Amino acid sequence: MTKKNALYCQSGGVTAVINATACGIIETARRHSDEIGTVYGARNGIIGALREELVDTSLESDDNIAALKHTPGGAFGSCRFKLKDLEKQHTEYERLIDVFRAHNIGYLFYNGGGDSSDTAYKISKIAKQMGFPVNCIGVPKTIDNDLPITDTCPGFGTTAKYIAVSMKEASLDVESMCESSTKVFVMEVMGRHAGWIAAAGGLASDTHDEPPQIILFPEIPFEKEAFLKRVKYSVENYGYCSIIVSEGVQDKSGKFLADAGTVDAFGHSQLGGVAPVIANMVRDAHGYKYHWAVSDYLQRSARHLASQTDFEQAYAVGESAVKLAIEGRNGVMPIIKRLSDKPYTWEIATAELADMANVEKMLPRDYITEDGFGITQKCRTYMQPLIEGEAYPPYENGLPKYVRLKNTLLDKKLPKFNL
Amino acid sequence: MTKKNALYCQSGGVTAVINATACGIIETARRHSDEIGTVYGARNGIIGALREELVDTSLESDDNIAALKHTPGGAFGSCRFKLKDLEKQHTEYERLIDVFRAHNIGYLFYNGGGDSSDTAYKISKIAKQMGFPVNCIGVPKTIDNDLPITDTCPGFGTTAKYIAVSMKEASLDVESMCESSTKVFVMEVMGRHAGWIAAAGGLASDTHDEPPQIILFPEIPFEKEAFLKRVKYSVENYGYCSIIVSEGVQDKSGKFLADAGTVDAFGHSQLGGVAPVIANMVRDAHGYKYHWAVSDYLQRSARHLASQTDFEQAYAVGESAVKLAIEGRNGVMPIIKRLSDKPYTWEIATAELADMANVEKMLPRDYITEDGFGITQKCRTYMQPLIEGEAYPPYENGLPKYVRLKNTLLDKKLPKFNL
Repeated sequence: MTKKNALYCQSGGVTAVINATACGIIETARRHSDEIGTVYGARNGIIGALREELVDTSLESDDNIAALKHTPGGAFGSCRFKLKDLEKQHTEYERLIDVFRAHNIGYLFYNGGGDSSDTAYKISKIAKQMGFPVNCIGVPKTIDNDLPITDTCPGFGTTAKYIAVSMKEASLDVESMCESSTKVFVMEVMGRHAGWIAAAGGLASDTHDEPPQIILFPEIPFEKEAFLKRVKYSVENYGYCSIIVSEGVQDKSGKFLADAGTVDAFGHSQLGGVAPVIANMVRDAHGYKYHWAVSDYLQRSARHLASQTDFEQAYAVGESAVKLAIEGRNGVMPIIKRLSDKPYTWEIATAELADMANVEKMLPRDYITEDGFGITQKCRTYMQPLIEGEAYPPYENGLPKYVRLKNTLLDKKLPKFNL
Repeated sequence: MTKKNALYCQSGGVTAVINATACGIIETARRHSDEIGTVYGARNGIIGALREELVDTSLESDDNIAALKHTPGGAFGSCRFKLKDLEKQHTEYERLIDVFRAHNIGYLFYNGGGDSSDTAYKISKIAKQMGFPVNCIGVPKTIDNDLPITDTCPGFGTTAKYIAVSMKEASLDVESMCESSTKVFVMEVMGRHAGWIAAAGGLASDTHDEPPQIILFPEIPFEKEAFLKRVKYSVENYGYCSIIVSEGVQDKSGKFLADAGTVDAFGHSQLGGVAPVIANMVRDAHGYKYHWAVSDYLQRSARHLASQTDFEQAYAVGESAVKLAIEGRNGVMPIIKRLSDKPYTWEIATAELADMANVEKMLPRDYITEDGFGITQKCRTYMQPLIEGEAYPPYENGLPKYVRLKNTLLDKKLPKFNL
């Protein structure tokens, strides 16, 4: 029997360390070349798998593969694309099996978040049913940190570090100037459903008295009066107020604050940007001079500030995914299991994709202070180790030396497939 | 005759390395304790000098002063405050001389940008006229890079590095996802009058074909049609388009794009945020999915990503300021003189404050490509050395270990002064 090849898919929003996972997979597969053939990278994730656009990673040098460790973005491309419901139609799944068969693919590594676990789980079941069994391994990734069972998700620790460091730095700036200039600084962070990233901003200091003096979580319904009162208290007592606001903050009725009826010059409703909404609210109520920042993609691509913990975990889940595949496992995901808080120790464990799929892990209420504006010691104990250590990339001419792969596609063997 | 003390003022917007300059001044003064007494830090800049709020830096340990090297923000506080016109009234200047006399201050180090050079120049003249001569030394600082004569301004190199790295990283993210998701990414940068910071974004890659595919400068009147055409070209040819937009971009009539008639839910005009204006413009014309970022204060406080060149120059101007003061110079500023481009070599020279005051150095037209959307090789040759090298701060528990001084104020000797 010939050795089977592997297919690697990146799925959903990328992270600063998803390529470290790709590196873990490819390097480990290369070390086990007696058991596993070539790793193919699906171009733009599952879209590429359906289109039979497969990158031949065997044409990439060991050095370039190693450089993925410190390169942000998705080296093979990712996508936002949901396979159709398996119960309703099989066309896409049949096509995937055709592609697997055509290229002798016996292992699938599906690197994504909650939706991706579901997709990977479905593929793991259907492939066997269709008579072309594939060892399907989910590999965790998401800056949102919302996967169940695993202690954390690769990608989150680096975003958390970026947000905490940025808040600390910007607040030193605001504090320096608050006597005669900006008194309120608002920084918007990602996390539409869960407040993990917002909570990470709380790591910037040890207490409520220090920045961020206010965190607005999606889990806590926004109360304007209480918020404005707290802003005033902070300015009057500390001279300024630094605020983290999650893009997902909602009022009591469940309406996103970002969708605050703002219209542009042409009367079009303007999407996004809860930071300016909050800043304008403060201006209207108190008249304080303000500034606001929206770090947007910067927070999920900031490889220059990667957490060493996050980086190591990202690589480790890739490495373990290959080992699980070689062991013949199917429908599972390597996850991170915390062994102790301080010092933080962890190991890789295994979870069933069936248990991971479509479950969102929300920020527990006891991670948020009673007043709803800060994080508790319990949250700090959980989160602090995840931003520990600095995994700097190499630099050249003042810029990080990020790699761009050749990404040579395999010759196609199948007819065209229309998405 | 007793040794004279020194007063150090931080002025205007702070930078990631202004405290490195403070450190250069205080450490150098300590090494010349036979010639110079205590360095006092004016609390919140010139406001503190007027209020007689003077920080006694002799109470700070050598270690804490050394830690200023890697701490962003303004350690003693800064301000936006313009002294009244010297020709119209003398009250504020007389008060300053009273404070100087009361605390035996014979040296003034005024650390700021263009306005500050003017203030420092005026003080240098008036002090002598009023019979209490003070050696007044301007010390350059501004992320805007708009001071004349000097090769660059301490603070700019680090902001430039932050913007270039952030653009490079975020663009890798966008490129990964553009097949099925965001196609246009807009990042807003500071620089209301001059496009130095916007230009720095161009360092993220070597050509127009790579991100940022478009830079919008305040020096180039915005032409909507040409801009939208270029966005389309970029998306059609590269799959996506990364855009840097300066907050100071104006249309032909000189109107800021940021002031685009946007109103909030209550009909209040909404200030700031040219990035969403540009993003909405692209959406309306082409329907592309977009994201936008506004890094705001993050770009001027990002000490975690300081340029080594910038850091060394910031320290060097502080060190030289003290030497100039000891030599008895007055009304001058230590500046950076470029000796060669590659390798970049430089030395400290001296300029007259009279020549620095109120002169803004704009981005030369030949630093911008003919089409107005990119930077030329001449600009790269000038700018690249300024982002060279990484001057990382120390870390503890995953965060930079920034120092907070005790900032103990001297006892006041004078009556209260009302600003």
